[in-house]
Amino acid sequence: MKIKYELIKKDSNCSARLGILHTNHGSFDTPIFMPVGTQATVKTLSPEELKEVNSAVILSNTYHLWLRPGEDIVNKAGGLHKFMNYDGPILTDSGGFQVFSLAKPKDIKEEGVSFKSHIDGKKLLLTPELSIQIQNKLDSDIAMSFDECIPYPSTHDYAKASVERTLRWAKRGKDVHSNQNQSLFGIVQGSSYEDLRKYSAIETTKLDFDGYSIGGVSVGEGKEEMYQQIDYCINYLPEDKPRYLMGVGEPEDILEGVMRGVDMFDCVLPTRIARHGNAFTRCGKVNLRNSKFKEDFTPIEDTCDCYACRHYTKAYIRHLVIAQETFGARLLSIHNIRFLIKLTEEIRESIKNDTFIDYKDKFLNKYFNKE
Amino acid sequence: MKIKYELIKKDSNCSARLGILHTNHGSFDTPIFMPVGTQATVKTLSPEELKEVNSAVILSNTYHLWLRPGEDIVNKAGGLHKFMNYDGPILTDSGGFQVFSLAKPKDIKEEGVSFKSHIDGKKLLLTPELSIQIQNKLDSDIAMSFDECIPYPSTHDYAKASVERTLRWAKRGKDVHSNQNQSLFGIVQGSSYEDLRKYSAIETTKLDFDGYSIGGVSVGEGKEEMYQQIDYCINYLPEDKPRYLMGVGEPEDILEGVMRGVDMFDCVLPTRIARHGNAFTRCGKVNLRNSKFKEDFTPIEDTCDCYACRHYTKAYIRHLVIAQETFGARLLSIHNIRFLIKLTEEIRESIKNDTFIDYKDKFLNKYFNKE
Repeated sequence: MKIKYELIKKDSNCSARLGILHTNHGSFDTPIFMPVGTQATVKTLSPEELKEVNSAVILSNTYHLWLRPGEDIVNKAGGLHKFMNYDGPILTDSGGFQVFSLAKPKDIKEEGVSFKSHIDGKKLLLTPELSIQIQNKLDSDIAMSFDECIPYPSTHDYAKASVERTLRWAKRGKDVHSNQNQSLFGIVQGSSYEDLRKYSAIETTKLDFDGYSIGGVSVGEGKEEMYQQIDYCINYLPEDKPRYLMGVGEPEDILEGVMRGVDMFDCVLPTRIARHGNAFTRCGKVNLRNSKFKEDFTPIEDTCDCYACRHYTKAYIRHLVIAQETFGARLLSIHNIRFLIKLTEEIRESIKNDTFIDYKDKFLNKYFNKE
Repeated sequence: MKIKYELIKKDSNCSARLGILHTNHGSFDTPIFMPVGTQATVKTLSPEELKEVNSAVILSNTYHLWLRPGEDIVNKAGGLHKFMNYDGPILTDSGGFQVFSLAKPKDIKEEGVSFKSHIDGKKLLLTPELSIQIQNKLDSDIAMSFDECIPYPSTHDYAKASVERTLRWAKRGKDVHSNQNQSLFGIVQGSSYEDLRKYSAIETTKLDFDGYSIGGVSVGEGKEEMYQQIDYCINYLPEDKPRYLMGVGEPEDILEGVMRGVDMFDCVLPTRIARHGNAFTRCGKVNLRNSKFKEDFTPIEDTCDCYACRHYTKAYIRHLVIAQETFGARLLSIHNIRFLIKLTEEIRESIKNDTFIDYKDKFLNKYFNKE
C-alpha cells in the first residue's frame, strides 16, 4: 500500500495545514518532526524511547546503510523495520545529500555521481536507479528520488542545468521503482532562484510522486533567504500530497516552514547537539557544560514531560556530559527530540484552533528572549 | 540502619552459602554480582534497565566521584541514590585501588597516599579518614575501608608491612566513620602469602566491621594461585557477616569464589567487553565484530531473556558495533550484565538444592567447550 495524505484543515490566517499521513506502519498527524536514525539507529536511543517521546516517524540514511551493513543484509533481515526492531513508519533519503557533502572528491555525470567512500576511500558510483533499488531493498515506507545538491551560491546557469538533471534523475528513479509497499517522493531544487524553484516544483509535480520534498534550501545570506526558497515553490505543489522540508529542524525553521504549508521536517540537530551537552529549552538552547549548572538540582525544564526531565537534574546530566558518559547524551537526546515533537504537537493544536500565528509569535519571542 | 546478613543455608558439599543481605534500600539474595557504575552511572544503562536485568546492588567508585563531580555536590543532591536516580542498594569502594592503579606517580606514607589526578594531574592526598568522609557524604549503603593495594609479586617483608599499615588505616577510617545509615567493610590483604592472608583476616575481624572484603587477589602465576589467596583467609572471616571478593567477575572466578564461601562480586568486565563488541555466552565469549555474524539473524543467545536477545539479532548488533553506534554497547552491556546476574541466580538455586558443585562443573565444561 502507498501512503495516503488526508488534509484535515488549514489555519484560517496562513498556509499552515493539519493533516494525517497513512502508511503501512501506522498513521501520524502532520506537521511532524522526524528524528534521524542515520545508521539504522537514532543515536543513543532505543525504539521504545522513541515511542515514549511520541515520535511517530523516523528517517534513515540510504548512503550510510548502503555502505554499512549493505542493503542486501538489511533486506535479508526482512527490511529496515525488522533489522532495527522499529515498527513505526520509516522514511529513507536518497543518498544524494551525503555523496555531495560527505564523500569527496566527486564527479557528477549524467549517469550519476562518482565519489570515494567516507569510510574506506573506495571509489563508488551512485545513480538514480541504484539509489531507488537500494531503498526498495531497505523497504522503507517512503523513499526519496536521487537529486543533485548543489553548493550555495551557484550561478543561475549551473542551477538551471542541475534542476533539469535532477528532473531526469527523478524520472529514471521512478521508472525503476518496484516496491509496491513503498511510496516515492520527488524533490524540488533550484537553489535561491525564484524561477528555478517554481519550474522545478511544476515539472516535478508532473511526474506524479506520492509526495514532494523541498531540498537544498540554504541559509545563504540569512534565514529570510531560506524561507523565501520555500515561498518560491510551495504553492506549485499539489494540496493533496505531503510536503517535506529536508534537513531542517531548528524550532524557528519548523515554525516558518509550517506557516508556509510544510508538513514534514527532519534534522540530526536534537541528537547532535545532545552529544555536545546542549539542550533545547523554551528560552533557547543551553549548554549543560556551563559551570552555573554545577549545583542546579532542577530538571532541564520543569514543564517538560520527558524521561530526562522527570528523573534527572541539570547537575547530574552536567556531570555525565563532563565525565563523557554516554548516558548523558542519551538523556539530552531524549529531551531534545521530545522538545521538537512537543513543538509539533502544540503547532497542530494551534492550527486546529486557528491560532498558529499567535502561537508562533509567542514561542519565538520567548525562545529568542524578546519578552 | 546498618546492613544485616542472614545466612539461609550452606551447600552440603562445599562452602557455598545462600544468604540475604538487608539494606536501607532493599534486601537481596547472595551470592550476587554487582555491576559497576564508576561515575554514578553503569556505562550506557539506565537504572530501569538495571532493574530489568534483575540487578540488585551496584558499586560506584569513590575516587572518581571525589574528583568529579565532588562529594559535596553529590551530598547536596541528597546523596548518591538521589543524584543518579537509583533507589537500590549501592556499595562504594574506598578509592584505594584507583590511587594505586590509575593515578601515578604516588607516594605512600603512613598518613595516606599522594598522587596526581588522572584527569588534570593535580596533586592530591587520599587518607583513610578522607576516604571514609567522602563515602559518608556520598551516603552509599556500604562503604569500604581505605587499603593499600600492592603490586604482584611483592616480597614477604613489603607485604607484611603493608598488611600492618592497612590494619592501622582500617582502624583510623572506622574511628571517623559517622554515617549511621552506612555500613563499613574491612579489607583483607596479604598478597600471595598464606600467613599474611590469615593474619590479615584475623586482625581485620577483630576490628569488628559490618562485612569483609578480600582485596588484592591477583592471578599471579595462574588462576589457581588467585583461588588459593581466597582459601588462605576466608575461613578466618566470621560466618555471620557478608564476604565480598573485590574486582572479580569472570564467570569461572565467580563460581570458584562461591564454592569457597564468597557472597559478593563486582567487575567492570560486562560493560567493558561490551564496548569492544564482546558478549558472554554459555559457550564462552564471542566478539560480534567477527564477520561470521554478518548475516546471522539470530539473537546472541536463544535461551537468554534479556532485552537485547528478545529483540535484536547478532547481525544488527554487529552493524552497530562496527558503525560505532553506542546503542550497540548498550545492548551488549544489557546482555552481559544479565548473563552474570542470571549466573548468580542459577548458583543460588543450585545451593538451595545442594547441587552447586554439579552446576559449576557443567557450566564450566560448556563455557570452556570441554563437552
